[in-house]
Amino acid sequence: MTNTNRIINFSAGPAAIPESVLLEAQSNLFNYKGLGLSVMEMSHRSKAYDAIHNDAINDLKTLLNVPDNYRILFLQGGASMQFAMLPMNFAQHQPVDVIHTGSWTKKAIDELKKGYQYRVVASSEDQKFLGLPDASKISFNDDAAYTYMCSNNTIFGTQFKTFPTHSKRPLVVDMSSDILSRPLNVSDFGIIFAGAQKNIGPSGVTVVIIKDELLDTCHPDAPVFFNYTSHASANSLYNTPPTFGIYIAHLVFKRLLELGGLKEQEKQNTLKANCLYQAIDESSQFYCPVPKEDRSPMNVVFRHQDHNESIESAFISEAKAAGFDGLKGHRSVGGLRASIYNAQELAQIEQFSTFIREFSKKALVHSH
Amino acid sequence: MTNTNRIINFSAGPAAIPESVLLEAQSNLFNYKGLGLSVMEMSHRSKAYDAIHNDAINDLKTLLNVPDNYRILFLQGGASMQFAMLPMNFAQHQPVDVIHTGSWTKKAIDELKKGYQYRVVASSEDQKFLGLPDASKISFNDDAAYTYMCSNNTIFGTQFKTFPTHSKRPLVVDMSSDILSRPLNVSDFGIIFAGAQKNIGPSGVTVVIIKDELLDTCHPDAPVFFNYTSHASANSLYNTPPTFGIYIAHLVFKRLLELGGLKEQEKQNTLKANCLYQAIDESSQFYCPVPKEDRSPMNVVFRHQDHNESIESAFISEAKAAGFDGLKGHRSVGGLRASIYNAQELAQIEQFSTFIREFSKKALVHSH
Repeated sequence: MTNTNRIINFSAGPAAIPESVLLEAQSNLFNYKGLGLSVMEMSHRSKAYDAIHNDAINDLKTLLNVPDNYRILFLQGGASMQFAMLPMNFAQHQPVDVIHTGSWTKKAIDELKKGYQYRVVASSEDQKFLGLPDASKISFNDDAAYTYMCSNNTIFGTQFKTFPTHSKRPLVVDMSSDILSRPLNVSDFGIIFAGAQKNIGPSGVTVVIIKDELLDTCHPDAPVFFNYTSHASANSLYNTPPTFGIYIAHLVFKRLLELGGLKEQEKQNTLKANCLYQAIDESSQFYCPVPKEDRSPMNVVFRHQDHNESIESAFISEAKAAGFDGLKGHRSVGGLRASIYNAQELAQIEQFSTFIREFSKKALVHSH
Repeated sequence: MTNTNRIINFSAGPAAIPESVLLEAQSNLFNYKGLGLSVMEMSHRSKAYDAIHNDAINDLKTLLNVPDNYRILFLQGGASMQFAMLPMNFAQHQPVDVIHTGSWTKKAIDELKKGYQYRVVASSEDQKFLGLPDASKISFNDDAAYTYMCSNNTIFGTQFKTFPTHSKRPLVVDMSSDILSRPLNVSDFGIIFAGAQKNIGPSGVTVVIIKDELLDTCHPDAPVFFNYTSHASANSLYNTPPTFGIYIAHLVFKRLLELGGLKEQEKQNTLKANCLYQAIDESSQFYCPVPKEDRSPMNVVFRHQDHNESIESAFISEAKAAGFDGLKGHRSVGGLRASIYNAQELAQIEQFSTFIREFSKKALVHSH
């Protein structure tokens, strides 16, 4: 536990939120900036909420250096809703090219199976998703509706370091688990989307960054609520948005700008990931199943050398007693996982790395 | 302003939340019950969140006396998403019977126009929606997919006092703006749904109460995310739910139970509405355009006698200065509106009624 009696939270999402953001939200929860009401109680058509909403859009635009020919939308439903919305709008007449890298692209494929055409143009299924296809070598189809991929897989702990910008069709990327962890060249993408609950804020907000020219091609028969143009033309106020979540997201955006933007985040995230992977690589007890070049700096997946589940359980229990929580691997794969999004600080990762070293030594003595 | 420097908030939604709920949320925002993290940071698969989630479902079940053959779901997207989801699941082969009572049923009809059949079986359009059809006299079609209606119209200030239980087909009701304001006989309905941001909690949570036998008829080709069975079979954990909003909703449910449940709410809401409508009816300056039998106890719509917009503006400004906010009518109709959901207390409505009386007297003197 830290001196604030807070745990160090390695949950994959919903995940840790910066303490400064929580403290600011807490002090304003009952009476926002002296206006006499909580952000949760503000009409989404009020001046006070309008300022929060537009500041959130503008600060995100600054952070990611989003060009003027892109729109930033705040929707609901998480990535799962995007899996269904994307083909409704863009895949009525053409197949989708999919890069399949695990559970999240599987869910997107499951939605495509509900009446759309798609082709898996690259897959890491033969590696059990514990690695990634080489993005630069994938062949795409020029007649595809769009190219679909997920940048970072939370379950298998993989991350694309570069994007396949040679596709001639719009690149649509699920960045739920690594958005804002590094700078992006937004012009390389047709659509970027992300559920908020990893690097942005609370669950219930989905960020969509969409190129104007794609908005013009949304299928007119798509349900009004699931048509991106409904939300774009109303500046994400087509219906009542998740106002409180957008407010928290804005506090996170503001903090990242104050900390120096995404180059600084990338630097910190690299230091954090290197520190933790090194502790695992050097451990006599644990190993990381992902090859170095594909490892995610967000979700560090590791296992006991012999997949000994009782040692993994003991690790989780002892870690929890020491104040480190959320370390269980995803229920579909088991093992261990430490999610280290932007909100985690290097000092916390160093503490945890020390814990891994000490546990490994102790386990080694115990096993002799 | 009250002694807590909070305004009296008449916003139609997002709307006032009970102060006791906000204070409890505030004190737990940084460190929930000593567990060392905020509710916003909890994994939706954790024990701590699981307790919140299931307590919310169980307390809502108790409050509304929901029978065992109904499921309670927490979804996202507000009522607007339900407008699109309902026909996807249930209207693929049969037309929908719609009772059309204003903007919200209009939005539901707009979604039906995207490829489904429907019949308007009753409408108050000829009264400009300032009244309601007699529910007991509507003729329904026995071949309808379902009967669709909205119980309370926030914009026109109308509320159905009884439901057309003589329809042989499932009755699907948008109760966004009056759920939890009165007891219900849930068995009369096929589906009840409500956006949370009026009587339940923050925007971004949608409550759906659905009869088991309807779940069995969801169209298998509906997108996975928009199929009610995906959410029902996963206890609303198919994907990451809006955890913080569900937590606030639970605090509201708990408070309503402590206050004596929905019979007590109905009693208070009747007292509040009677008090406010009486002040308007007795005013020389204002009138309510809705006939008494159709008036909503949630959204009290009123206008200056001669629709004098400068007097209406002056009323809004002076009310604001006196601590009463959110009184502007919906942008589509203008005029004035006071939304008085559960969170408003009788004493606050009495204060506001006194303000209306004093403003009316003063305006009368001024106009002589």
